[in-house]
Amino acid sequence: MAGTDRQKKLMTGGPAIILVEPQLGENIGMVARAMANFGLSDLRLVNPRDGWPNDKARSAASKADHVIDATQVFDTLAEAIADLNFVVATTARERDGFKPVCGPVEATGKLRRVEEGDGRAGILFGRERWGLKNHEITLADEIVTFPVNPAFASLNIAQAVLLMAYEWMKSGMESDLPADFRQAEMEPATKADMQGLFDHLEEALEARGYFRPASKKPKMVENLRAVLSRQGFFLPEINLLRGVIRSLDRFSRKKPKGSGAPDMDPSDEAVHSGE
Amino acid sequence: MAGTDRQKKLMTGGPAIILVEPQLGENIGMVARAMANFGLSDLRLVNPRDGWPNDKARSAASKADHVIDATQVFDTLAEAIADLNFVVATTARERDGFKPVCGPVEATGKLRRVEEGDGRAGILFGRERWGLKNHEITLADEIVTFPVNPAFASLNIAQAVLLMAYEWMKSGMESDLPADFRQAEMEPATKADMQGLFDHLEEALEARGYFRPASKKPKMVENLRAVLSRQGFFLPEINLLRGVIRSLDRFSRKKPKGSGAPDMDPSDEAVHSGE
Repeated sequence: MAGTDRQKKLMTGGPAIILVEPQLGENIGMVARAMANFGLSDLRLVNPRDGWPNDKARSAASKADHVIDATQVFDTLAEAIADLNFVVATTARERDGFKPVCGPVEATGKLRRVEEGDGRAGILFGRERWGLKNHEITLADEIVTFPVNPAFASLNIAQAVLLMAYEWMKSGMESDLPADFRQAEMEPATKADMQGLFDHLEEALEARGYFRPASKKPKMVENLRAVLSRQGFFLPEINLLRGVIRSLDRFSRKKPKGSGAPDMDPSDEAVHSGE
Repeated sequence: MAGTDRQKKLMTGGPAIILVEPQLGENIGMVARAMANFGLSDLRLVNPRDGWPNDKARSAASKADHVIDATQVFDTLAEAIADLNFVVATTARERDGFKPVCGPVEATGKLRRVEEGDGRAGILFGRERWGLKNHEITLADEIVTFPVNPAFASLNIAQAVLLMAYEWMKSGMESDLPADFRQAEMEPATKADMQGLFDHLEEALEARGYFRPASKKPKMVENLRAVLSRQGFFLPEINLLRGVIRSLDRFSRKKPKGSGAPDMDPSDEAVHSGE
């Protein structure tokens, strides 16, 4: 899925990702990679088991070096979030208590409002096996949980970060389609273009006695147009289809090899050029 | 993030996940785990490098055994999707061509409409390093791309599957779908039906020397299929189109009454003018 454009400026900023007592360097690296994919860059570790820096983390980060290099390490969670204004804690389990629980979409919406104001926001992720302890969750403003299969809830830490980072990215976009993809480069076909296609095809079929019996012709025409007009065609597509009809209509099947020249006319090239 | 409730019934169903020539068993296992988290269960492998079954895959699946056990292996992508009605291909790169491109939310909405009708849907994922080839993308109805950081686009295959599976789950939690999407009175066409249409048309065109120069044939075939595979066709529609091709292919033009008039369609000029 690689598609990095080195000419583009790296996105940075966004909420801090705080990992509490992460154990495996590989997971930290995968977290950094997930963050970089969605433009996050502030990674904070609370008391990582294997210390820091960590070669396995760098290697698993797949060149998200800007995240690894800027990673900060803290002794306690309280210190790690001291400069933040709004913090959400991710958890897989339902918890009783007074803290509001929301899903990733609502949570990233709130995080964005903070970040786009004057505040700084963060997202807490727990240990690989045990998640966050209750006294750690107490430090957060709200709880986020993921809409997973109740009978198989097994997101690892890097996957949980990936989903939150992805929702963060989407929360800043009007559409979830990258801007480069949004504009159709082809001219949409007009109704007149469509009518030209219908006329062309129907004439060619009429010439072969396709519309039989005559009494059924109106219904047959209606069906044919319905099939062909379902989609929003672009003009080059209409031209392609008309080239197809023309080829089928005008020319006979060639005899098998060595039995005569093709009866194509040279102007036909243009029909193909809409590609 | 573990929070599995063994009392709950496993969710199954949803679109098939199709991995084309996956290389690492670990990735296949992580894909199975991602799928299970969001209630998907139909995993299909096209020509996996290290064969199947694969111990590394099972181990990386973190007990998503129901997905691993039901995994099907195919020799070709065409076989892997033959029973499906609507297929999207995931890609990180921009592609020129006629296929519509959408983001994960829109794509999973479409997949759900198919699955909640009478159809079966699938999502294609490419090889770890090179993604999908153009002729493979041609087999899909639409392209999905992810809203990633343009300067660091490095989702691996398991991450891409995770995001699509997550959006699939979310798409089922939103409000009811419009009723008109739910009632499909006609049988949806399968990929095999579509392939029959393509074969039929391409043979008829080949017989007329349409594909010239030969070097351009692959691109021309790709464009033709893209234009014809945009919509979710119903089987009666495919049959109608094949009737049209048969008529154009098999029969010659009848001579207009009492004239030796040329068999040109006057509207033919228009074919060139748009190009």
